[in-house]
Amino acid sequence: MRILGIDPGVATIGFGVIDAQRQNNTLIRYGVISTPAGLPLSHRLSQIYADMQELVRTFQPDEMAVEELFFNTNLTTGIAVAHGRGVILLAAEQMGIPIFEYTPMQVKQAVVGYGKAEKKQVMLMTQRLLKMDKIPRPDDAADALAIAICHSRSATSLLNRDRVFDPKKYDTR
Amino acid sequence: MRILGIDPGVATIGFGVIDAQRQNNTLIRYGVISTPAGLPLSHRLSQIYADMQELVRTFQPDEMAVEELFFNTNLTTGIAVAHGRGVILLAAEQMGIPIFEYTPMQVKQAVVGYGKAEKKQVMLMTQRLLKMDKIPRPDDAADALAIAICHSRSATSLLNRDRVFDPKKYDTR
Repeated sequence: MRILGIDPGVATIGFGVIDAQRQNNTLIRYGVISTPAGLPLSHRLSQIYADMQELVRTFQPDEMAVEELFFNTNLTTGIAVAHGRGVILLAAEQMGIPIFEYTPMQVKQAVVGYGKAEKKQVMLMTQRLLKMDKIPRPDDAADALAIAICHSRSATSLLNRDRVFDPKKYDTR
Repeated sequence: MRILGIDPGVATIGFGVIDAQRQNNTLIRYGVISTPAGLPLSHRLSQIYADMQELVRTFQPDEMAVEELFFNTNLTTGIAVAHGRGVILLAAEQMGIPIFEYTPMQVKQAVVGYGKAEKKQVMLMTQRLLKMDKIPRPDDAADALAIAICHSRSATSLLNRDRVFDPKKYDTR
């Protein structure tokens, strides 16, 4: 099953695409969508919308996982990010991609096994789990891959849903 | 010139449509777009997007005026509102409607003549300026009409732009 992980934003949106099998994830692609700071917000949102559509058309994900927003630090940035996140959710919704949301703590818990893990630990585990030579760069793309991995390990993913809802599928010898 | 005023949100979006001539505004329509609280955010955003398109198709505004966001009170609500506002800006941008943004203080200043006016004063002036029998209800719709009036009085509106940029248009007898 293919998962698109998204680290939402307006200036920079991280994306990470993985093919998830149980216990095994394969890296497909990662990167960032960037919009120029000089443009009006509405132009930037329009560009994000078009780029999201392009991502979905190109990689045909079965599900999308997006980080939830927490405004601990910069409120002004946070407002802009929420504008971008709205457009990202809209694009996925319109293209029929099921959307799943995770807090930063859930991502750390799923990837490192500890909800208060350091950012560096999350990146190293992301690298290891996807068998990459180096830590993925930039940070937003690494975050997006971690979110995708988090979703692949979540019981809410369709990948794992039959474990919960359809015991008949298990080998019962 | 037709102006669409928008009070952004997710649960309730106020809209107000006026025809603006210099020194004189005519009320066309006002109301709210509502989305049910029980739906996932992405569904609600999708509904807002469709309703915004419908508003623009129905009323064919020349320009849109939207209130800026300030998070003084409820941060969680504010995040959701910013998601909705992103989708509203996107819809207008995609339909080619020029977008103008005003702070609550600018709206009060333009409608009442005093940037710290009470909400009630703004509503009474909105009613008077649009020659309405009663104060417009609900509040979100009244706010949207006030934003539209604010824009009609702004130098950035196309309505007023020739006063600044094209002196040849003036009678110079």
